[in-house]
Amino acid sequence: MAQFTDIAASLERQAIELPSWAFGNSGTRFKVFGSPGTPRDPFEKVRDAAKVHEFTGLAPTMALHIPWDRVDDFGALSRFAADHGIALGTVNSNTFQEADYKLGSLTHTDPRIRQRAVDHHFECIEILERIGARDLKIWLADGTNYPGQGDIRRRQDLLAEGLATIYERLGPDNRLVLEYKLFEPAFYHTDVPDWGTSYAHVMALGERAKVCLDTGHHAPGTNIEFIVAQLLRLGRLGSFDFNSRFYADDDLIVGAADPFQLFRILVEVVRGGGYAHPEVTFMLDQCHNIEPKIPGQIRSVLNVQEMTARALLLDFEALRVAQEAGDVLGANAVFMDAFYTDVRGELADWRQERGLPADPMAAFAASGYLETIAAERIGGQAAGWDA
Amino acid sequence: MAQFTDIAASLERQAIELPSWAFGNSGTRFKVFGSPGTPRDPFEKVRDAAKVHEFTGLAPTMALHIPWDRVDDFGALSRFAADHGIALGTVNSNTFQEADYKLGSLTHTDPRIRQRAVDHHFECIEILERIGARDLKIWLADGTNYPGQGDIRRRQDLLAEGLATIYERLGPDNRLVLEYKLFEPAFYHTDVPDWGTSYAHVMALGERAKVCLDTGHHAPGTNIEFIVAQLLRLGRLGSFDFNSRFYADDDLIVGAADPFQLFRILVEVVRGGGYAHPEVTFMLDQCHNIEPKIPGQIRSVLNVQEMTARALLLDFEALRVAQEAGDVLGANAVFMDAFYTDVRGELADWRQERGLPADPMAAFAASGYLETIAAERIGGQAAGWDA
Amino acid sequence: MAQFTDIAASLERQAIELPSWAFGNSGTRFKVFGSPGTPRDPFEKVRDAAKVHEFTGLAPTMALHIPWDRVDDFGALSRFAADHGIALGTVNSNTFQEADYKLGSLTHTDPRIRQRAVDHHFECIEILERIGARDLKIWLADGTNYPGQGDIRRRQDLLAEGLATIYERLGPDNRLVLEYKLFEPAFYHTDVPDWGTSYAHVMALGERAKVCLDTGHHAPGTNIEFIVAQLLRLGRLGSFDFNSRFYADDDLIVGAADPFQLFRILVEVVRGGGYAHPEVTFMLDQCHNIEPKIPGQIRSVLNVQEMTARALLLDFEALRVAQEAGDVLGANAVFMDAFYTDVRGELADWRQERGLPADPMAAFAASGYLETIAAERIGGQAAGWDA
Amino acid sequence: MAQFTDIAASLERQAIELPSWAFGNSGTRFKVFGSPGTPRDPFEKVRDAAKVHEFTGLAPTMALHIPWDRVDDFGALSRFAADHGIALGTVNSNTFQEADYKLGSLTHTDPRIRQRAVDHHFECIEILERIGARDLKIWLADGTNYPGQGDIRRRQDLLAEGLATIYERLGPDNRLVLEYKLFEPAFYHTDVPDWGTSYAHVMALGERAKVCLDTGHHAPGTNIEFIVAQLLRLGRLGSFDFNSRFYADDDLIVGAADPFQLFRILVEVVRGGGYAHPEVTFMLDQCHNIEPKIPGQIRSVLNVQEMTARALLLDFEALRVAQEAGDVLGANAVFMDAFYTDVRGELADWRQERGLPADPMAAFAASGYLETIAAERIGGQAAGWDA
Repeated sequence: MAQFTDIAASLERQAIELPSWAFGNSGTRFKVFGSPGTPRDPFEKVRDAAKVHEFTGLAPTMALHIPWDRVDDFGALSRFAADHGIALGTVNSNTFQEADYKLGSLTHTDPRIRQRAVDHHFECIEILERIGARDLKIWLADGTNYPGQGDIRRRQDLLAEGLATIYERLGPDNRLVLEYKLFEPAFYHTDVPDWGTSYAHVMALGERAKVCLDTGHHAPGTNIEFIVAQLLRLGRLGSFDFNSRFYADDDLIVGAADPFQLFRILVEVVRGGGYAHPEVTFMLDQCHNIEPKIPGQIRSVLNVQEMTARALLLDFEALRVAQEAGDVLGANAVFMDAFYTDVRGELADWRQERGLPADPMAAFAASGYLETIAAERIGGQAAGWDA
Repeated sequence: MAQFTDIAASLERQAIELPSWAFGNSGTRFKVFGSPGTPRDPFEKVRDAAKVHEFTGLAPTMALHIPWDRVDDFGALSRFAADHGIALGTVNSNTFQEADYKLGSLTHTDPRIRQRAVDHHFECIEILERIGARDLKIWLADGTNYPGQGDIRRRQDLLAEGLATIYERLGPDNRLVLEYKLFEPAFYHTDVPDWGTSYAHVMALGERAKVCLDTGHHAPGTNIEFIVAQLLRLGRLGSFDFNSRFYADDDLIVGAADPFQLFRILVEVVRGGGYAHPEVTFMLDQCHNIEPKIPGQIRSVLNVQEMTARALLLDFEALRVAQEAGDVLGANAVFMDAFYTDVRGELADWRQERGLPADPMAAFAASGYLETIAAERIGGQAAGWDA
Repeated sequence: MAQFTDIAASLERQAIELPSWAFGNSGTRFKVFGSPGTPRDPFEKVRDAAKVHEFTGLAPTMALHIPWDRVDDFGALSRFAADHGIALGTVNSNTFQEADYKLGSLTHTDPRIRQRAVDHHFECIEILERIGARDLKIWLADGTNYPGQGDIRRRQDLLAEGLATIYERLGPDNRLVLEYKLFEPAFYHTDVPDWGTSYAHVMALGERAKVCLDTGHHAPGTNIEFIVAQLLRLGRLGSFDFNSRFYADDDLIVGAADPFQLFRILVEVVRGGGYAHPEVTFMLDQCHNIEPKIPGQIRSVLNVQEMTARALLLDFEALRVAQEAGDVLGANAVFMDAFYTDVRGELADWRQERGLPADPMAAFAASGYLETIAAERIGGQAAGWDA
Repeated sequence: MAQFTDIAASLERQAIELPSWAFGNSGTRFKVFGSPGTPRDPFEKVRDAAKVHEFTGLAPTMALHIPWDRVDDFGALSRFAADHGIALGTVNSNTFQEADYKLGSLTHTDPRIRQRAVDHHFECIEILERIGARDLKIWLADGTNYPGQGDIRRRQDLLAEGLATIYERLGPDNRLVLEYKLFEPAFYHTDVPDWGTSYAHVMALGERAKVCLDTGHHAPGTNIEFIVAQLLRLGRLGSFDFNSRFYADDDLIVGAADPFQLFRILVEVVRGGGYAHPEVTFMLDQCHNIEPKIPGQIRSVLNVQEMTARALLLDFEALRVAQEAGDVLGANAVFMDAFYTDVRGELADWRQERGLPADPMAAFAASGYLETIAAERIGGQAAGWDA
């Protein structure tokens, strides 16, 4: 197995994008619990996201969600982010919260509503330009709840048409990243349910169209690392939405539900050349329904880092030899050896050598930031999925 | 196979309880879409529920959810219901929407919060007495999102303690019906995840404690009709929460996702003596997120009735003979014959003979009621899960 | 809704291919139960398959599985089939029963074994030519049981290489049809786990490469009719392997587990132009572990026919109108109306008008054929998956 | 967190029972691959099992499966085991491989076949007495493949009757342990599908009836550690069948698929007093379809030991404090800290201090035992599920 010193430099190239919405309130259909200090506007979200980067060195960018993060002056928001040591990243569109979109957006039967959805994406592209970011990420809530409700086939054609219109509008340095999801909020069918559908559409669009893999968007039993390997092989893995789940799209902290799965995913990322490659954006997409949000994000980026270190430590050459020899248990042992290696102590040292706190969770707690924002952010409307 | 005339009288004994909350707004964590005419108080819900009964003859009672349906004078609400031709039924408690309950209610580590949850159930029992209904139904959202967050084992003991306290307070004609659910809103563990847990608790409580089976609360691949048969055999099936699902707890219209499963469930109900038996309450528990709510409820009770008719038509004697002969295909053919029989025409006649509209969906649409309430119910706060 | 008379002629175009192996013994890893009259060679399988066609008019071809159906003279087997009123169809390869293939076939690390697997497919192509059939169907058991055991990524490249070599060898009228499967016999990863992988490979091969969709090869909760619609849209649906399942790849009689799902699949087939289109082969792939095999096949083709009739009866125009109006319940009602229509009586008439028995199951039972083969087929080695 | 020295003594109390059948050939319905050196009789299985204990100190007993392990003189087999340093343990019955049992055993409609199944269990009880072991373990393959095939409800009554007859015959020091399984080999329903059913039956039988939890026998998404905690609380956890799975009952090496789940299970075992308690038998139930069998078993017991060490290291007091404080992230961190601790080095030392090889896998490979048995065990019938 590789030594930690062999991978220390490589770890510096890791960058994990934070979702602005993880700092706002979230919940389930049963209840959204509020929490003190929740940001009330995108500027306050930037401040919170910047804290995650300050304590970990891992999160140099924050993704936006439009309209949730709409501001009058995106240039000002960019500069504000820069002043706090981070940059703005991926722009996520949202076509699931207007009454118009109740039965679909890009796939709606009504051309007026389809146009509205296209226009919304044009706005997102403009924002991309203003903040100087690269990726437009599209997750569509489009789908149906009842068999017969919609024309599954025709909706695919409408989707292709809408995506093509949006893709054409992209700048030469922009990308369109299309996310897929098995179900929710639609319960019978979704219009982009699986990676195959996303792949078929991005192939039709062009080179700068990619697939976003959200780790919580698959059917039970799906081998996600296989999809990672396949999309890297096909040159179409655009980004990750990391989180973890036990049942559905639970949006828990990445690595919390099945750490070994996260390891296997990251091994395929490394194996397939996706680590620290500009092609692949590592993003979080999580909800901190009951736990504090900034520590939740710190824990998340640390989990990704710890597991990345384990994946980088994997002795790929010994693995190859065992695989070629048909040594099932031997190959598995090489693989597990990396997973079971406790990298936490060396990562603490690594951080200290780079001027970061050895224990970011403890350091953040000691910083008093949570108490400060709880005291400061009184009044106003706490940010959330509906705001 | 039995003839329709053989079962016509039996069909008259069917009674399906409607959930008051099905008439209010509902949705997913992504969005709750409003709809015109949504009731703003329990009285308006009664009016809507009564319409379902008026057009189908199938829904003589409406269940309450507290605090959503709290009124100053439950006697008045009961009389209002009676004036509209229905009665109030099961009282459902709710310990998932107060900030106190964020980490649990009856299973919370804090005795003050556990007491609060117990007190809430005492209030529900008082309401039961005032409206003269029988069942207190308890579904707990209690659970945890992260491994280690809670002490799974101790929470069972706290749960047993809380349920015992509530059970003691019940009147001699009341029952406690304990619902189970695999997941949501908790994502790592729930405190009553399966029928076995519910069964173990109600066994410890006493004879008047029963299990509620919600058809959407199981893991993928669960054979639900087996659980129905088992609970009837054990004398512990208290009620159904009918709905249908493709993935998780989708709360779609009963019979919409897998009509054959509904048939199999109803066959076991009939086989096990649960049909038209006072022991077993047939209740709906659904969300009409995108479809109109009153027609959604009418469609639902009709679905249950149609499938009940098919189950009653099953030639149990021919089935028994084929089963005993080990005739796999023959037994299956007898079974499928009942399922594939189109009972809709005869049910239309059956309704007309009883002074009901042949086509309740069309008759309701023609009645203009939806238009009336849309016009009348302007202003105020539409009922929903959060109100 | 359409009338039965409108669809009667269309039903004549239905042709369902039978798998030769459904007539042999099959079972689970726990036990293969034998049954009297099991065929001992491909000629006896042809006789049994021909019976299914004789009593239903629905099954004019029988697919082969090599090496299970290897004979000295395929011309003789073809003529024997023709003499019995059917033809030989799809040739299925088998690279999962030789010791060499324990760790893979086309994806094996050892080039010698990969070549052996390629050669096996060349043999299958020769057989295709000799019997004058079109499709080479490839289902690979390739995969791994333990994380790290194999190089998931490299195996994709080896697979692509092997498939390309096989594809080149195909005659101009032949097709390569690539099946996918989530799991089993491999338990950690399979090399063609989903339609997306199959699609990516057939796209790389060329126009005559298609996807085979086995209805039992998906993760729980997968919307199969969506995949049907998508593959038809992409022009890559080559064939169905019909069967049904409750849990895994149960290979039960098609329509037995979820008849409504079968209906939805067939609606998309009709909607997408796949019905009676030469592009799409309707094949069964089932195991009759405990029920008699020939009646099991008769029941299966009848189930497909009955559900096809319901799908053809669907009022697509009324459906379209309701869908465009956003009438969720109305569209669903149009859809369900077709599903709930009992077509069995009219299909019995339809059969009689065409010189077929009204009740093929009863007629076959009365024919005494099962008793005849049970008496005749004494001694020898009953056909099965291992023979 | 506890120190390793604190738990070293506790680790000595660990005993894991090996399944005799893990040393024989196994496979899937597609193929059983043979391997050199496979034992041909129970004596050779004992020799192999004893090797696992010799190199690990963890596996002092071997479970039998009847009729697979039937011998003329069980006393001789017991002495042979003792001579090799191990003892014979749990006796597993088998009512799934005789033609009579095709449609059921204890639940069959035919009283003659039910009696045969009961008699088989009487034989197992006699064997228990002869070998001086405690537990009769019953896993029933009983179930049906098609809806309507069997009377689900009546089969429960027959099952209860059969179990009662068997239970009565048990000696005063014997126990009946009833296993449950979601599906396979039956595909529509199984007669003991879940822990609730097993629990209801053992409650009806008496104090010495317990539940066996096989970690691979649940629906996707089932929280297994919850069931562990519940059964320990109810005093009815009799034994584990450890293995791991990605999809169905894959019977892979325990800990191979989801090590974190194994950790969570063992934490509940420790928390609930089940560790090193005579009440709870730790058993493996695995198939080594493609990997060598003895190393597969060594790897398995080591996996259980490593994860047990992590569970024992958990700082339960710190966990309790965090749980009571409602500190979600803090409690989770305490929990994960134990999981991520690399105990392998200290376990190697622990072994050496006790005269065991530091690296049992390497030591066994170096011992030449595999080569010896491959050379010796030529001819005869290799043991397998069908022999």
